[in-house]
Amino acid sequence: MIELASLARHPTLAARLAASASATDGAVWDDARVRRWLEDRRREHRQRVRLVPLDEMRGWHFRPGLGDLRHRSGRFYSVQGLHVSTDTGPVPVWSQPIINQPEIGILGIVVREIDGLLHCLVQAKTEPGNVNGIQLSPTVQATRSNYTRAHGGSAVPYLEYFRSSGAGTRTILADVLQSEQGAWFYCKRNRNMIVEVGPEVEAREDFCWLTLRQLNRLLAVDNLVNMDTRTVLSCMPGWHPPEQDDRRGAHTDVEIRSWITEQQSEHTVTARLMPLPSVHEGGWRVRPDRITHRDGRYFDIIGAEVDSNTREVPSWCQPLLRPHGTGIAALLVRYHHGTPHALVNASVEAGYRDVVELGPTVQCTPENYTQFGPEHQPRYLDLVRSAPPESVLFDSVLSEEGGRFYHATTRYLIVDAGEELPLATPPEFRWMSLPQLTEFLKYSHYVNVQARTLIAALRSVLDRT
Amino acid sequence: MIELASLARHPTLAARLAASASATDGAVWDDARVRRWLEDRRREHRQRVRLVPLDEMRGWHFRPGLGDLRHRSGRFYSVQGLHVSTDTGPVPVWSQPIINQPEIGILGIVVREIDGLLHCLVQAKTEPGNVNGIQLSPTVQATRSNYTRAHGGSAVPYLEYFRSSGAGTRTILADVLQSEQGAWFYCKRNRNMIVEVGPEVEAREDFCWLTLRQLNRLLAVDNLVNMDTRTVLSCMPGWHPPEQDDRRGAHTDVEIRSWITEQQSEHTVTARLMPLPSVHEGGWRVRPDRITHRDGRYFDIIGAEVDSNTREVPSWCQPLLRPHGTGIAALLVRYHHGTPHALVNASVEAGYRDVVELGPTVQCTPENYTQFGPEHQPRYLDLVRSAPPESVLFDSVLSEEGGRFYHATTRYLIVDAGEELPLATPPEFRWMSLPQLTEFLKYSHYVNVQARTLIAALRSVLDRT
Repeated sequence: MIELASLARHPTLAARLAASASATDGAVWDDARVRRWLEDRRREHRQRVRLVPLDEMRGWHFRPGLGDLRHRSGRFYSVQGLHVSTDTGPVPVWSQPIINQPEIGILGIVVREIDGLLHCLVQAKTEPGNVNGIQLSPTVQATRSNYTRAHGGSAVPYLEYFRSSGAGTRTILADVLQSEQGAWFYCKRNRNMIVEVGPEVEAREDFCWLTLRQLNRLLAVDNLVNMDTRTVLSCMPGWHPPEQDDRRGAHTDVEIRSWITEQQSEHTVTARLMPLPSVHEGGWRVRPDRITHRDGRYFDIIGAEVDSNTREVPSWCQPLLRPHGTGIAALLVRYHHGTPHALVNASVEAGYRDVVELGPTVQCTPENYTQFGPEHQPRYLDLVRSAPPESVLFDSVLSEEGGRFYHATTRYLIVDAGEELPLATPPEFRWMSLPQLTEFLKYSHYVNVQARTLIAALRSVLDRT
Repeated sequence: MIELASLARHPTLAARLAASASATDGAVWDDARVRRWLEDRRREHRQRVRLVPLDEMRGWHFRPGLGDLRHRSGRFYSVQGLHVSTDTGPVPVWSQPIINQPEIGILGIVVREIDGLLHCLVQAKTEPGNVNGIQLSPTVQATRSNYTRAHGGSAVPYLEYFRSSGAGTRTILADVLQSEQGAWFYCKRNRNMIVEVGPEVEAREDFCWLTLRQLNRLLAVDNLVNMDTRTVLSCMPGWHPPEQDDRRGAHTDVEIRSWITEQQSEHTVTARLMPLPSVHEGGWRVRPDRITHRDGRYFDIIGAEVDSNTREVPSWCQPLLRPHGTGIAALLVRYHHGTPHALVNASVEAGYRDVVELGPTVQCTPENYTQFGPEHQPRYLDLVRSAPPESVLFDSVLSEEGGRFYHATTRYLIVDAGEELPLATPPEFRWMSLPQLTEFLKYSHYVNVQARTLIAALRSVLDRT
């Protein structure tokens, strides 16, 4: 109820966002101009990534004693071992390598009203793990090491609008810590921010102003809008009309909160960091050149040497996680009393801060399940795969964070389940309305990173004319 | 805005809660009858607590190798070592013993309408660490070990209303995971629940129905309403009129959320569990009989042998944390545009799940600060201590969890700061309205346990006629 008052204070915010998401003209650059800018950027940015053995990465070493793979400065991130025991899923105990990056980075989008229409400032940025070099990243995508100068690189443009100590004048629209992949990161989270600035802020060479409508359209292009942009976009305040009456939602807010709490309480997941060499007991082989699983499943940890003409430092080495197989993240959606609803799963991942977060209906890498029988196949996967083309509302292959993952792609799907899919669900699933999901995204560690991409995608689908 | 709709669905919930908090009669038992019941309970409950050396506790041992103090079954909780490094506060690196209890327990209050007035079902319960034997606990106060029968004890009464698998019919009013003392517990949290039940639910012998007004009055009695009851009460949905216009709040909701996120991002706290004997490097002495700090500060870990005629098992041993000195937890409050506001601190404790939670204005054990100079004394402590009696709205010594802490008491104070205390604050403090705090209490890990007691106390002060 307090939020209603906030809207009263910024009476036009929801309306301005809606206009930016639906106006068919008024963008500072039309789509053809944006495409030309992107092609220019691709020509300008030169990045060479060469895979190298882990023990030949400059600046990195397997730390004597513990054996963890880390930077000699102790900064950036490290690869450690994780021991997990759980009462959920087909495997009760396992160990695995995991990326540990305790620092909180900033993922921030600057928005500005231009000719009466809100525009988002995106950046053309290369990452060593990207399948295609350049993708569209947020205005600022900076680890704490970045902005406190551990790289010895140049200053981060626009950073001043995302720190209260900065000189930039701004209105904060969103600012929340959100988790990232709990299967690959240990308790990782980043600060997701959206700030509105005034007309004094202009786009530098590698930056471009896009309306929400343009950004929504680009979201459907394979491997173009990067993971960081997608997660920040998902935290945008809502512009779809909220329910006036919560009987329009399949469940009340307190019922949803209670379900999440129950799922957190009923699942036990104990995850503790351990020395990297101990992952051997889980079937992992830690070798001087790379880390692999003996069955060839899950992922490898590989080394990369990167040369770039556009980054803070011209050349560096870093480890990357290379997953085996393309993931699937799918959301079943339907209308209920005129409000769009998504079927979310109480997702359990070892790297979450508190056991459970809301995930997509289906989230898996199908190759990792070939070892299990039909009773352990991901629920609803068949339904998603057999959906008739006319009910597939969104179907794009998008990249996960190219700064940590090598060629990690996920096929994101939104499938209209129709009203024949019942509102009653198995205990680990619930139908939530889009306004409910938008509300939870104001708070930390409730909605996982794959679901956040799909929420941004769902809004883009709803705004299509 | 979704919450308005929830209220529409239960149109009278806020009004019914307000009535229960303010009606001067209509309680099933008047205060004299409640007092008699309490005296009866005190006579009936016999508990004998004998302090014993740690290595003489039946069922517990210092685990060979790691040296952690734990139960031979591996259940309940353990005492381990914690290594902490931080850029906050006067001490950058330390190690300490800490209680590790990964299980999520249930703290639940049943409410029921009796003769048109909502009543809460409280329980007279002894805990080994209580200074006075019996205190008022929630309807259900059960660890997972309790309710999954690790004790081999008897069934937990009313538990069926707090589990979806239970047969009890109920309406959930609150259900959220909340943290406990981050200085003494590692990432501990419990499920705080309030459920409304129908007339078929009656009070057993050790239970009593109280209106919110009665419970509020008892909150001011020293060492009577226990910590678990206080934290659950704090999660009660709001019955104080929300702001219709957030210009009445000192800060908008998004400004508050952004401030919390910034505080989480700007502080670095790295805490990792380590073998108990390693706390030696932090000045701790782990002896067969007890664990103490060499300066006699902070706390001891001691052993207790308990005989009780009312608990699930008649006799058992357990370690307890005995703090040195009585803590102070104080909230400065003032009105702003007619809405009560509290000055909250971005509190940093090693055992939090994500760096910062909202704490009272002042929270400390003054004895632990005698070693530091004036520049490191807790901010606002002087102001609280020198407050004139007429501006002290609440002043009671209340007990912390008697199931884990031995004679741990905190003096809880609410001080009317008046409008001369400015709305501008140091960066780690913010004025938040009571409706804002109530909203944050719907989500996990935003408001710490001491602040939760003070929010319950603040409501009790506001409802005094």
